[in-house]
Amino acid sequence: MDTSGYGNDNYESLHNAASDDELVDIIAGATLDFSITDDVPPLDPEYSLGHDAYTNGKTGNTKLMDLLDEPVPGVGTYEDFNTIDWVREKSKDRDRHREITSKSKLSTPALLESISDAFSGWLLMLLIGLWSGALAGGIDILAHWLTDLKEGLCLSGFWYDHEHCCWGSNETTFQERDKCPEWQSWAELLGGSSVGASAYIVDYLMFIIWALLFAFLAVILVRAFAPYACGSGIPEIKTILSGFIIRGYLGKWTLIIKTVTLVLAVSSGLSLGKEGPLVHVACCCANILCHLFTKYRKNEAKRREKYAAAGVSYYFPLKTLWRSFFAALVAAFTLRSINPFGNSRLVLFYVEFHTPWHMVELVPFVLLGIFGGLWGAIFIRANIACTYFSVLEVLVVTGATALLSFPNSYTRMSGSELISELFNDCSLLDSSQLCGYISSPDNSNTIPDRPAGPDVYTALWQLALALVFKMLITVVTFGMKVPSGLFIPSMAVGAIAGRLLGVGMEQLALNHHDSAIFKSWCSPGADCITPGLYAMVGAAACLGGVTRMTISLVVIMFELTGGLEYIVPLMAATMTSKWVADAFGREGIYEAHIRLNGYPFLEPKEEYGSKALAQDVMRPRRSDPPLAVLTQEGMSVGEVEAMVADTDYSGFPVVVCQESQRLVGFILRRDLVISLENARQRQEGVVSASLVFFTDHVPAQPTSGPPAVKLRGILDLSPFTVTDHTPMEITVDIFRKLGLRQSLVTHNGRLLGIITKKDVLKHMAQMANRDPDSILFN
Amino acid sequence: MDTSGYGNDNYESLHNAASDDELVDIIAGATLDFSITDDVPPLDPEYSLGHDAYTNGKTGNTKLMDLLDEPVPGVGTYEDFNTIDWVREKSKDRDRHREITSKSKLSTPALLESISDAFSGWLLMLLIGLWSGALAGGIDILAHWLTDLKEGLCLSGFWYDHEHCCWGSNETTFQERDKCPEWQSWAELLGGSSVGASAYIVDYLMFIIWALLFAFLAVILVRAFAPYACGSGIPEIKTILSGFIIRGYLGKWTLIIKTVTLVLAVSSGLSLGKEGPLVHVACCCANILCHLFTKYRKNEAKRREKYAAAGVSYYFPLKTLWRSFFAALVAAFTLRSINPFGNSRLVLFYVEFHTPWHMVELVPFVLLGIFGGLWGAIFIRANIACTYFSVLEVLVVTGATALLSFPNSYTRMSGSELISELFNDCSLLDSSQLCGYISSPDNSNTIPDRPAGPDVYTALWQLALALVFKMLITVVTFGMKVPSGLFIPSMAVGAIAGRLLGVGMEQLALNHHDSAIFKSWCSPGADCITPGLYAMVGAAACLGGVTRMTISLVVIMFELTGGLEYIVPLMAATMTSKWVADAFGREGIYEAHIRLNGYPFLEPKEEYGSKALAQDVMRPRRSDPPLAVLTQEGMSVGEVEAMVADTDYSGFPVVVCQESQRLVGFILRRDLVISLENARQRQEGVVSASLVFFTDHVPAQPTSGPPAVKLRGILDLSPFTVTDHTPMEITVDIFRKLGLRQSLVTHNGRLLGIITKKDVLKHMAQMANRDPDSILFN
Repeated sequence: MDTSGYGNDNYESLHNAASDDELVDIIAGATLDFSITDDVPPLDPEYSLGHDAYTNGKTGNTKLMDLLDEPVPGVGTYEDFNTIDWVREKSKDRDRHREITSKSKLSTPALLESISDAFSGWLLMLLIGLWSGALAGGIDILAHWLTDLKEGLCLSGFWYDHEHCCWGSNETTFQERDKCPEWQSWAELLGGSSVGASAYIVDYLMFIIWALLFAFLAVILVRAFAPYACGSGIPEIKTILSGFIIRGYLGKWTLIIKTVTLVLAVSSGLSLGKEGPLVHVACCCANILCHLFTKYRKNEAKRREKYAAAGVSYYFPLKTLWRSFFAALVAAFTLRSINPFGNSRLVLFYVEFHTPWHMVELVPFVLLGIFGGLWGAIFIRANIACTYFSVLEVLVVTGATALLSFPNSYTRMSGSELISELFNDCSLLDSSQLCGYISSPDNSNTIPDRPAGPDVYTALWQLALALVFKMLITVVTFGMKVPSGLFIPSMAVGAIAGRLLGVGMEQLALNHHDSAIFKSWCSPGADCITPGLYAMVGAAACLGGVTRMTISLVVIMFELTGGLEYIVPLMAATMTSKWVADAFGREGIYEAHIRLNGYPFLEPKEEYGSKALAQDVMRPRRSDPPLAVLTQEGMSVGEVEAMVADTDYSGFPVVVCQESQRLVGFILRRDLVISLENARQRQEGVVSASLVFFTDHVPAQPTSGPPAVKLRGILDLSPFTVTDHTPMEITVDIFRKLGLRQSLVTHNGRLLGIITKKDVLKHMAQMANRDPDSILFN
Repeated sequence: MDTSGYGNDNYESLHNAASDDELVDIIAGATLDFSITDDVPPLDPEYSLGHDAYTNGKTGNTKLMDLLDEPVPGVGTYEDFNTIDWVREKSKDRDRHREITSKSKLSTPALLESISDAFSGWLLMLLIGLWSGALAGGIDILAHWLTDLKEGLCLSGFWYDHEHCCWGSNETTFQERDKCPEWQSWAELLGGSSVGASAYIVDYLMFIIWALLFAFLAVILVRAFAPYACGSGIPEIKTILSGFIIRGYLGKWTLIIKTVTLVLAVSSGLSLGKEGPLVHVACCCANILCHLFTKYRKNEAKRREKYAAAGVSYYFPLKTLWRSFFAALVAAFTLRSINPFGNSRLVLFYVEFHTPWHMVELVPFVLLGIFGGLWGAIFIRANIACTYFSVLEVLVVTGATALLSFPNSYTRMSGSELISELFNDCSLLDSSQLCGYISSPDNSNTIPDRPAGPDVYTALWQLALALVFKMLITVVTFGMKVPSGLFIPSMAVGAIAGRLLGVGMEQLALNHHDSAIFKSWCSPGADCITPGLYAMVGAAACLGGVTRMTISLVVIMFELTGGLEYIVPLMAATMTSKWVADAFGREGIYEAHIRLNGYPFLEPKEEYGSKALAQDVMRPRRSDPPLAVLTQEGMSVGEVEAMVADTDYSGFPVVVCQESQRLVGFILRRDLVISLENARQRQEGVVSASLVFFTDHVPAQPTSGPPAVKLRGILDLSPFTVTDHTPMEITVDIFRKLGLRQSLVTHNGRLLGIITKKDVLKHMAQMANRDPDSILFN
């Protein structure tokens, strides 16, 4: 097709003429001769037949597309670092489902196949639940053992951790249940004595050495085998769930290395949690198991449903929710039979408080919220500033952590133990330092007035130091290239702050119960304040400040603690925390990391208030060369290949002709390249001069010319379009809700441009005064 | 504009030519003279200016549209029984928000307005929570009082119910806390004696008379003042939330009458619950309070967010979820201060069981699921068959209910009391008949072997009779024209069946604990089976069969009972129940009622597997007259009015010209009619011959001709389009996710037809072998 007459018909002039529709019709009229030359005679009987058939929804034109009936390998797949098309993947799955259903009526094997296909989803969930639950339990047990190994060794079997080592011992009482002769500290093993300054120094040194060894192994393994295994993985999984492709991110190497290094990182005593990495591990399990089932192996959208079920719930239909519930349940069962928490409950921190809270206490709860918000804002800023760490730096941080955490019992214990202890409401049997209240001898059976004893004051000092230490060390830890979650460290910071405030309030109420604030609800002798509740609220506030979750956070707190009575305190604190943190920047830590990495993630909740229209965001811009389009007929293989080579677009619109710019469909670059290569190799006589047809009907060729290549089969005949006047708010909404990869822009029925997800994200970045070039992928 | 030359250009020929795009361009070329006559000279400087301005996203053409700057009253509102356009409503709200925000930078009052606007959502939620919580509490108290009034009267004050009457009495013991001299049964008041056959008959008669009186009042009030107050209201609220307009359904009359008649209906002892009607009451409160705030009064979409927050959560953004949480909380607080349940917990049935469940018990749980599914299927069929009831029929049902329920203590008590009793795990203090186990004298402190005593057998017989009675009477009750919810009756049926099975299993295990089934987990002397848990599982199964909710149901069971340990039994039963019920028909009771009423409700989860394309569903069909379209210029006011009068479509596409059928925008019938009327009245000189312009630019008119009417301001320039090849599956998905009212259908950039929500629903009804004409509204 000779387009030279329209070589000057660049985007600028086309755009200027766009409102003036009759004008282009005139041009079309003027090129009558050309149109007729390439056109199909309207009365061709075969054409009419084909057309009638297609209007009835039947594929009457199959005999024209015999080549494409055998699917070309690779067509319909995606390149690395690209976004999938949800609509296309979903209809692919529906077609597959329909095919199996219709076949199932024909024969018994096909019926069995259809049944097994229907149940494969449930079977897969069962397997994912079993595997990821087993892995979580295994990680927990190993991490406990390695953590205890830093302090000593079990003589009755080196594979026992401290607790299990002493289970077999008969000499333990309830009070000293973790002291037994079988468990020997390093000082005892190496120096023969467990007391004295030298023994303390030996223990201290061994503690640091083991920590450095574990951290070194972890960082080396991640570097050498699976760079994707570092961090929490949550930002990447959120992006993958939204349709992005990162090959190998959920692969078997990532799984193996993440599992091993997570154990090492946790055991090294670094201030990090394992909840986020466990979500990544579960998603890896889901991905690997998906490859056992054709249904999931071949469909990116279906596979993402499973990731979501295994990890977090996001963007998915109800059925998935049900199944993820099921997977969570199986995982919970597996976890319970392994029983890493050592109690029969499924919740991590079981909380039962004896006093209800009072309205006045909302003031300290809101204060905790403010603290949490500030902590979140500082943490995110500091963390973004220092993300890259060398092996040496990891070792320095680990060494510093071990050095500083050993002397203070609250920092030496693991994050979850610390939180457990801080959430705890002192009962009478409690031997913890934090519960060292002076009990009055006359009424020892109830829990009355609780004046703090010296133990409590010591504990408060240690906690205050632990707070400063945890805050500093957590900021530098989360950026390290080892698997690291931030749930537990963030919660620990908040729990310490909360407990400190709670004990403070408690003593204040005790000493001033005549004052106006406490008089009405806190009678002398009654215990009106629960410091453990303050710790819980503080933990939620800090987690909220860092992640900016609100409702889901409150739900998580329910899950973690099983407490349903404390919705209002939790809500008050998390909302305050979110508001305070949002004042410093609207992004949570995961969004900040997504942006840092330039992933194409369309935040589902981000408010967007621009007045821009689709035409302001679409490509080509006014100064750009015109949109690269294919025409449905008249282009040769060589011309198409030249256009593909000249541009780097991911897809091309197909129009009726260059003049009218009326949209026929959209074709993906990858599919086009593969199909043309395939045609050149497999179809005899295809050369650069062969014509390419995207039409239903291919005109009878003179036998002397090269055979035509028919590509209608790979053409998407229902591309998404918006008009140029569509407000970007609506366009963004459409992209979000339908999971689009691109949308074409039309004006009065004429193709004008294209908007991709990347354009949308760049525009949104610009609106938020961020650098639009931070969006790296498409 | 003279279209006579194209009078034969009907849909048929247009459709046949549709693939052949160049052809129409030829026609366009042939009518060159016409195009040029009406066309704007491309070099008109004013035109270029206007165009440049609009491409930059500015409204440089405002001076052309001065008339439309003053909004015409009524434009942008909806008719009764129509569906709103979500996209339009949302962008209206965004425009309003932007205006307030931009103004707020100019002056302090405007800033205050902007702040009050931002907080009005929260204030509104607070008010809704307070009001609906107070109403729920009031309804509960009144219903208790009236229910007790059927049995007797309090001498110390007629306004006390039985329980509160006896609170003041000193003579009550714990065992007989509901017997006190102040409370007199009707037999005592009227006949002086509380024992003997005659006293029983007096009580019986009074019970029936009061029941009839209450039912009569309820049905008369509903008929006379607010027919919308009948039923549960859930199907209508679901439809309203999806965007349908039913004027008065959430109005003040409905609220008043529904509140009063709900109390009466519950008190009359009919087998109905109040949970569904309470959702309706809360939505009425939300609607009435919305009218206090401009932001919500003027926006149908924003108002629906509040309904959803007040009632059920469906289809809405995260912010709404947070706020609905908040409203639920305030409502819960208000409810707690009124304390209708008489306990300090917020849950309706607090459940604590002493024994965990065993895997083997899943068999009876699944059996309960099957029962629940069958019950659901039968209930829905029977209920759909008998929906219309006269006053007489209501009285007959009420009389029969009272007559049959009085002698049996399990049917005489209210549904929620019955469920409470059935869920109850017998503790030692329990005096209930169901807990009349024979206790062995040697170990009275624990709960060991529980052989059933004669009391238990009596209770079982009564329960069996109650089950039959409840099943029959619930079916006929739910179709009555009084406020009626089905949660409690359905749960009661399931709870009775569950308890019967539970006690059966318990005695089986007791007498056969050596058998293979029980041997491994049920040692002699241990109490291994909790009949209360069976009742809970049965209740969930029956509710699941009727409503087809699954996850939400399990969540509701958590909320109602506070029990987190029984996810698996509940899941097993509800899933089985859903599968069994689905085998008989895939619709839940609410969906069945929505269909019965012909509401346009697009089920969000309904699986849809048709191979149809958009062109098979769109209008006009092949045999229909062509699509009624307006052209963007050249039509006179008279022609437009004639087209509106000749058709009953809700809106019209606007095209460039009849020949090219290139889409410019879409205009709603209501807006068009109002604007034309307004122009005729307010704009001087507008007659039938005046030209109507939908273009940006209106050519300079000869001063002698009538002035033109400019309607671009009310034209939707971003109508939704799909191509004719778009599979209906994708189209349905788009309608669902974006809340569309209609979508235009194009082929190769040319307008071909239109698909409305009604068309989609009709098509889906056809696919499901239902009558497509059951969809009544648009």
